[in-house]
Amino acid sequence: MDNFRKNIETINESKASLFGKDFLLSWDKTDAELEMLIHVAEALKNLYNNNISTRCFETGLAVSQFRDNSTRTRFSFASAANMLGLTVQDLDEGKSQIAHGETVRETSNMISFLTEIIGIRDDMFLGAGHTYMKEVAHSLEEGYNEGVLPQRPAVVNLQCDIDHPTQSMADLMHLKNYFGSLENLKGKKIAMCWAYSPSYGKPLSVPQGIIGLMTRYGMEVELAYPEAYDLIPDVINVAKQNAAKSGGGFKIVNSMEEAFKNADIVYPKSWAPYSVMEKRTELLYANDKDGLKELEKHCLTNNAKFKNWECDAAKMKLTKNEEALYMHCLPADISGVSCAEGEVTKDVFDKYRIETYKEAGFKPYVIAAMMLSSRFKDAAALLNFMKDRNTKRIYGI
Amino acid sequence: MDNFRKNIETINESKASLFGKDFLLSWDKTDAELEMLIHVAEALKNLYNNNISTRCFETGLAVSQFRDNSTRTRFSFASAANMLGLTVQDLDEGKSQIAHGETVRETSNMISFLTEIIGIRDDMFLGAGHTYMKEVAHSLEEGYNEGVLPQRPAVVNLQCDIDHPTQSMADLMHLKNYFGSLENLKGKKIAMCWAYSPSYGKPLSVPQGIIGLMTRYGMEVELAYPEAYDLIPDVINVAKQNAAKSGGGFKIVNSMEEAFKNADIVYPKSWAPYSVMEKRTELLYANDKDGLKELEKHCLTNNAKFKNWECDAAKMKLTKNEEALYMHCLPADISGVSCAEGEVTKDVFDKYRIETYKEAGFKPYVIAAMMLSSRFKDAAALLNFMKDRNTKRIYGI
Amino acid sequence: MDNFRKNIETINESKASLFGKDFLLSWDKTDAELEMLIHVAEALKNLYNNNISTRCFETGLAVSQFRDNSTRTRFSFASAANMLGLTVQDLDEGKSQIAHGETVRETSNMISFLTEIIGIRDDMFLGAGHTYMKEVAHSLEEGYNEGVLPQRPAVVNLQCDIDHPTQSMADLMHLKNYFGSLENLKGKKIAMCWAYSPSYGKPLSVPQGIIGLMTRYGMEVELAYPEAYDLIPDVINVAKQNAAKSGGGFKIVNSMEEAFKNADIVYPKSWAPYSVMEKRTELLYANDKDGLKELEKHCLTNNAKFKNWECDAAKMKLTKNEEALYMHCLPADISGVSCAEGEVTKDVFDKYRIETYKEAGFKPYVIAAMMLSSRFKDAAALLNFMKDRNTKRIYGI
Repeated sequence: MDNFRKNIETINESKASLFGKDFLLSWDKTDAELEMLIHVAEALKNLYNNNISTRCFETGLAVSQFRDNSTRTRFSFASAANMLGLTVQDLDEGKSQIAHGETVRETSNMISFLTEIIGIRDDMFLGAGHTYMKEVAHSLEEGYNEGVLPQRPAVVNLQCDIDHPTQSMADLMHLKNYFGSLENLKGKKIAMCWAYSPSYGKPLSVPQGIIGLMTRYGMEVELAYPEAYDLIPDVINVAKQNAAKSGGGFKIVNSMEEAFKNADIVYPKSWAPYSVMEKRTELLYANDKDGLKELEKHCLTNNAKFKNWECDAAKMKLTKNEEALYMHCLPADISGVSCAEGEVTKDVFDKYRIETYKEAGFKPYVIAAMMLSSRFKDAAALLNFMKDRNTKRIYGI
Repeated sequence: MDNFRKNIETINESKASLFGKDFLLSWDKTDAELEMLIHVAEALKNLYNNNISTRCFETGLAVSQFRDNSTRTRFSFASAANMLGLTVQDLDEGKSQIAHGETVRETSNMISFLTEIIGIRDDMFLGAGHTYMKEVAHSLEEGYNEGVLPQRPAVVNLQCDIDHPTQSMADLMHLKNYFGSLENLKGKKIAMCWAYSPSYGKPLSVPQGIIGLMTRYGMEVELAYPEAYDLIPDVINVAKQNAAKSGGGFKIVNSMEEAFKNADIVYPKSWAPYSVMEKRTELLYANDKDGLKELEKHCLTNNAKFKNWECDAAKMKLTKNEEALYMHCLPADISGVSCAEGEVTKDVFDKYRIETYKEAGFKPYVIAAMMLSSRFKDAAALLNFMKDRNTKRIYGI
Repeated sequence: MDNFRKNIETINESKASLFGKDFLLSWDKTDAELEMLIHVAEALKNLYNNNISTRCFETGLAVSQFRDNSTRTRFSFASAANMLGLTVQDLDEGKSQIAHGETVRETSNMISFLTEIIGIRDDMFLGAGHTYMKEVAHSLEEGYNEGVLPQRPAVVNLQCDIDHPTQSMADLMHLKNYFGSLENLKGKKIAMCWAYSPSYGKPLSVPQGIIGLMTRYGMEVELAYPEAYDLIPDVINVAKQNAAKSGGGFKIVNSMEEAFKNADIVYPKSWAPYSVMEKRTELLYANDKDGLKELEKHCLTNNAKFKNWECDAAKMKLTKNEEALYMHCLPADISGVSCAEGEVTKDVFDKYRIETYKEAGFKPYVIAAMMLSSRFKDAAALLNFMKDRNTKRIYGI
């Protein structure tokens, strides 16, 4: 438990607090807050691995709302809630009366009377997901202030149109673990690359989350994509400012090979161009099915021009010592496995498969840390309390 | 915790008990039983607000079966189960083998081996919902008596074709809280009014629940609806008898304005005429889609004649001191918000919006009180035990 | 608690252990292991009936994956998880990204970071269900060995194409309870009979599970079916070998009457012929809808030749003392109740209805015993710990 003690010390020294705060965008948080979060997550992982119960709620709900499909985030959210003692209640819009014309404000309060956390995935409509989360948060704030809610549930972004902070923070923990410390990330080159996929309309939140977060740690972040596959300009600016402040770098290139050159880390992942996502949102709102089909066709045709944006062994040879760390949020489009031609070749993926699983394995602890930090004033004291209480997670022998 | 002590004293003095009983219709219960229930609910709310755990089940299931959509009742049920330590297991008829010809009797037993509570919403078919709940209850009784079930789960009505007792009891708690005491409700005028809605086929259970319950407290209950929008005759009789016994009044009028005149409380809410619901049930059973379309068309045309049955500022001016308490079970059809023309204008709703949220906020505690009272012989002793045990709901600091 | 003490002694004496093992096929387990499992299940039932909490997990997930409909197994799994303190998280392939081309290997790991148990029903495709479960188990093994998973979840077969061990073990507990002991089963004749049903494509796993398990206890197992309705040859061999070893008998006959003659127990239950299930699997994989319709038509026509394979009062008269124990996994196709003509007449079913409910009532404890035995090294010590801890399942008074 030496690491545990260091985690607690660091949390105490940082004096950062996320108490009473939602977690919507990583760049809304200070460096100290994010570092604290990582230490809380590590401490929780440590307690779990030592069979020490991390329950801090006797009762209470954690509401999840998935407006898009999810496996790993759904299970990570459920695991995080469970390890703190919260019970997940899913808000399934199909089974609710939301379709009957309820406002966001009303529903947010109705599901929150005994709720501690609301986790939301809303990543389909550009310009809508983050806005929705803010509206939920605002409604909860009002409900709490007006005496409707006995507590103010915290909103956790489980992927929106702009950011995917539970993913990027898990990725950061993976990098910290892989390279030994956050300090060691300084000067490391990470290539956040567009990659070819036979599907269309993948959200921008993963690449945006990565460039918005990794630029804070003095890394050389290189964003690579075929012309016109650009991201939301505001996030590009965030990345630039972060890089300037942290002493790292941020660069956009239009060649996968260039980005891979001498990279310590590569993150090849498909996404749809910003302008396509904007157009798509308009068509979705207008319920223009012909327009959507046309857009998809056009977009897939365009994608197909860039089938060479595939992470293969030849490109991996360009990286630092020919063995950059390959990362992915999963599931990856693996050529010859999950599709004919995709983001990554089977041999490259197989080499790093276990690493990508470990990368994903940080997510439950990141989410639990977000929950805990938002609902408890003194995270370090609580973690110490858990350790000293020493209740076994698995009873008995 | 002064109020808590008073709650406990009152429960002890009442000598009422709901132990081993289902909660299907409020008018099946004695005044003492309902009052006890309110005090249990208040005591639970008090413990919750003082961060004292109300868990009384280490393990056990609370089964929910929603045969109609639900947001607030679903979350209230989940919250109630959770605050007592029960885990919700939803009986989703789509995912079960019920369609394969199982009898109610069999399914009721199969889902109940380790179950404490079964909450059911079944409000679509007039003549069917309450009957179904009684059949479930009867099957559980048999299963328990025959040694199939180690305990007899209690059935809680989460809205049927006749009554909506978790709603009406939450409404009563809201009134008690708003006016200071149940005694203060004596002589108060409540206008349970039909209101225009562009939808059709809304259940009768809310207005029926209200007139069946509020007539017990010496209130002047005025039921208002356009001609032919009447309720189930048996429930009208219940209301009449209750009013006679409690020293209150019960009157039916065909004018919203008349009902609002000098009212202390108004409850404008749409419903379908009793005769239409009867016809609709026949057509649903016969799977007569053309007939259903025809009925809907006819009914909406008829509704449209009564668009002036809208709760607006002018009508609110007719009420006591021009400021009657506006109530609604939510979601309301708000003109210009959730529909073009509806039950209530935006300005009136907005003025009372927070109050309607608070009204809804009593529901988790009402349901928890129903669960607790049906499964524990001595509710007061249990509540005292919880208080003395003094386990923090949220651990730590 | 005398029986409890005997259970513990027997478990201790047996020295059998299922720790770290999946439960996929009953015939993969030794006699001692199965006997231990029954004693663990009985001990858990005993504790439950004495209101002693059986929680042994403070937190942790039990994942369920139902690739076919389920009521009783779903609720039994939920009850079992709940009584040990685990929270069920359902893997709903419709709501997940599995459709996006994820491999079984990946998903198995992604849902397992904080998971103790994975229960799977996959009984639709002959040759696929058991194979799938083995693949999940293998993936978990790899994930655990590679450091991806902090614990190795155990896989529990909730019905596959080959076996239905949670059913057959519950059936065995029912027989033990009904006849007094496993020893008393020696020499008893059980007739596992095909029976007519107006539906088609019912899995083979129940009859296979029964002949694979009951032949171990010195019973005279008679499998009866109309010509061509045979089972998987490998399982027939298992039954033959078991019977030879246990001193019982195993015989196949083509007459329900012959099987019923002098039987102590009858188990009339429909299934599809092995060859039809094979053909059906091919057509399902090929997505050949016309072929499937043709097959169904052909199969139902063939079924209809055997409507006299119905368990009726006349046939029951052929059994031992005219009162063999009737068994069924439920729901049964009851003539005149759930179908015009089916597996069993109403009068026979009604006579044994309560017994079949009791039979089903063992399932939660069987599943809980499988969970507990696979995750704890010393089941007897844990059960004793539970008894001595003496935490009330229902708190308070």
